[in-house]
Amino acid sequence: MLESGARLAPVEVAYATYGTLDAAGSNAVFVLHALTGDAEAVVWWDTLVGPGKPVDTDRFFVICPNLLGGCRGTTGPSSVNPATGEPYGLDFPLFTVRDLVTVHRALLAHLGVTRLHTAIGGSLGGMQALQWALDHPAELERAVLVCASAKLSAQNVAFSKTARAAIRRDGAAGMAFARMLAHITYLSVEGMELKFGRARRAEGPMTMDSDFEVEHYLDHQAEIFLARFDPFTYLYLSRVMDYFDPFADGPPRPDTRFLAISFDSDWRFGTEHSVHLTRELEALGADVRHHEVRSPWGHDSFLMAVPEYHALVAAFLG
Amino acid sequence: MLESGARLAPVEVAYATYGTLDAAGSNAVFVLHALTGDAEAVVWWDTLVGPGKPVDTDRFFVICPNLLGGCRGTTGPSSVNPATGEPYGLDFPLFTVRDLVTVHRALLAHLGVTRLHTAIGGSLGGMQALQWALDHPAELERAVLVCASAKLSAQNVAFSKTARAAIRRDGAAGMAFARMLAHITYLSVEGMELKFGRARRAEGPMTMDSDFEVEHYLDHQAEIFLARFDPFTYLYLSRVMDYFDPFADGPPRPDTRFLAISFDSDWRFGTEHSVHLTRELEALGADVRHHEVRSPWGHDSFLMAVPEYHALVAAFLG
Repeated sequence: MLESGARLAPVEVAYATYGTLDAAGSNAVFVLHALTGDAEAVVWWDTLVGPGKPVDTDRFFVICPNLLGGCRGTTGPSSVNPATGEPYGLDFPLFTVRDLVTVHRALLAHLGVTRLHTAIGGSLGGMQALQWALDHPAELERAVLVCASAKLSAQNVAFSKTARAAIRRDGAAGMAFARMLAHITYLSVEGMELKFGRARRAEGPMTMDSDFEVEHYLDHQAEIFLARFDPFTYLYLSRVMDYFDPFADGPPRPDTRFLAISFDSDWRFGTEHSVHLTRELEALGADVRHHEVRSPWGHDSFLMAVPEYHALVAAFLG
Repeated sequence: MLESGARLAPVEVAYATYGTLDAAGSNAVFVLHALTGDAEAVVWWDTLVGPGKPVDTDRFFVICPNLLGGCRGTTGPSSVNPATGEPYGLDFPLFTVRDLVTVHRALLAHLGVTRLHTAIGGSLGGMQALQWALDHPAELERAVLVCASAKLSAQNVAFSKTARAAIRRDGAAGMAFARMLAHITYLSVEGMELKFGRARRAEGPMTMDSDFEVEHYLDHQAEIFLARFDPFTYLYLSRVMDYFDPFADGPPRPDTRFLAISFDSDWRFGTEHSVHLTRELEALGADVRHHEVRSPWGHDSFLMAVPEYHALVAAFLG
């Protein structure tokens, strides 16, 4: 049963686990992916998750599912609707971050885990950890919210709206445009200057075709994304974020301990978003600390090997 | 003859003039429009140009043409190619900011004006004033460069590339996304929060359709833009900016007096761009002053009634 009242069945969940649950069941870490991730946490978050990494798979039992609405194994709009025998497409029901958490909790019950050492995620992943902690704090000892937000800005919504407009108009081809746009917002002005500057691939006269290196980068990112991602999942998971507003309900004080991390060059969910959610948690009386980390790589920093950030996570996980 | 060596003929120029040229021919002000403007300066720049305004049409003889490559009367890709009897489309030759200036100078000769009191423009308009002053400083007594740039950043190029990718894929429909994207970059985070916040047009359940006020705003902007603008002009004039790099040639010291203005919330061509072009002019020994003006409206500020900015322009024009 979704938060909207709509019923969705069956729901399959694709997930990966790494490491071993200890006898006390006390070492489970739940990794929550962002808009375009999947269950393979040791692949897309290889900088942070793995043997000897801050989320150490030699020490922790790490669980990572593909999200509800996803396109990498978990039920989503590209799944077959049993009522019609056809893929859901836009008949897939709308859902919320709370619904994502409902599915995570069902997976946890299936795995026989009653309490998490830590839930950790970046961007939309952090939003899920936050919602989970606010709704079921007894289930989360710690939550790590990396460049998350508890309320999108008008600019955030505007970028997502523009991406969705392209996808709804033009399907996969529109998603190419959405992906280019997203990549610009994942990087920073500074990071793009460092990475590309005004370098051109070849000397020669000006052309309407891709010429600057940054143009070739965007072409490439769009191309590989189209091969792996479903446009409908993009629509649904971006829309989930627009409506996310977990403090509007006036939740009770959560016992969970929170670590919020933001990056100074992130302008998609920058420090002001982490400051906002930290203040909201403090207002509830929660145990929360926030660190702004220096990194030139913008929002993408959460996927990168940024030593100060990794040290904070490792220390917080103890 | 274009800078590329290509020949383009005939070239028609649509222009407007306001006020009267004085007997000494000393009161001509040339207004240069940006990416999506036209010759009607007293309409689109009504905050700055008109009777009693900082660019006072009671005092100055104001000239404003539609740009080469435009779609509002001047020869551009939607014009008929005399060689084929069909619109040029992508057969229109590529051109540069210097070529825009070449056409402006031909218009000036046609009008019998030999020297301008001032050339003034915002964004791409400022780029034209800068190029003109560097190439023919004796023709410009003053140049006002409002939120201009002498070298686009990788992020700037990336935004333009993304817009062009949508247009080249999907023509006018793609231009709808390009316009939405552009509007986000014309505003600021702060300005969008002030103007829209998270306001929704109606109470009700979440929807995939436009719901937040900022979404309706973008829909509306895209719709009215499609009715008035040509996708090919968007391709050509955005590409002109990507390649603009007027100091690369090592120009001689210009005699023109320069005023550069930037806005603190502008993140498309923000203060760093004006600082850069000011330093380049100073390195040539030019007379240039730069002011950063406080305004919450981002790049769009150059079209708005921002008192400090208008006072600076009025004072500089004497």
